[in-house]
Amino acid sequence: MKARIIITLKRGVLDPQGKAVKGALTNLGFDQVKDVRVGKVVDVELDGVEDRAQAQILVEDMCKKLLANPVIEDFSYTLEEG
Amino acid sequence: MKARIIITLKRGVLDPQGKAVKGALTNLGFDQVKDVRVGKVVDVELDGVEDRAQAQILVEDMCKKLLANPVIEDFSYTLEEG
Repeated sequence: MKARIIITLKRGVLDPQGKAVKGALTNLGFDQVKDVRVGKVVDVELDGVEDRAQAQILVEDMCKKLLANPVIEDFSYTLEEG
Repeated sequence: MKARIIITLKRGVLDPQGKAVKGALTNLGFDQVKDVRVGKVVDVELDGVEDRAQAQILVEDMCKKLLANPVIEDFSYTLEEG
């Protein structure tokens, strides 16, 4: 089972990296860019986990214990067989 | 229009951050984790772009010119109205 976890900053949390990227895009002439937020994507390959429900529990546990900081970050994920 | 851009390292490119995360997960008891790859997600809000085709051209241009390094990274994106 493969999991793709997307970790983004919560709304309202300052994102200096996103601001820098927005500035760089504007400098390159992309005037249509109104806002940029930068987050992380973590692709996890799970071995011996065939059950979707079990994978969900595992991934949520990983996010809460290590991958995401619940104070400032939200996470979402998708699961893919194989 | 909103674009969510996912930037991942190409297959075969070393990912020390992913390796560190894998090690940390294993130390926490997540023995099912076989591999971890870490990438970036960039959420871009486009102003005054209603046309999907125009948004695609813009986003691909941004990725090629700034957001992704085509030598070591792949990118994909999804578009969302509003």
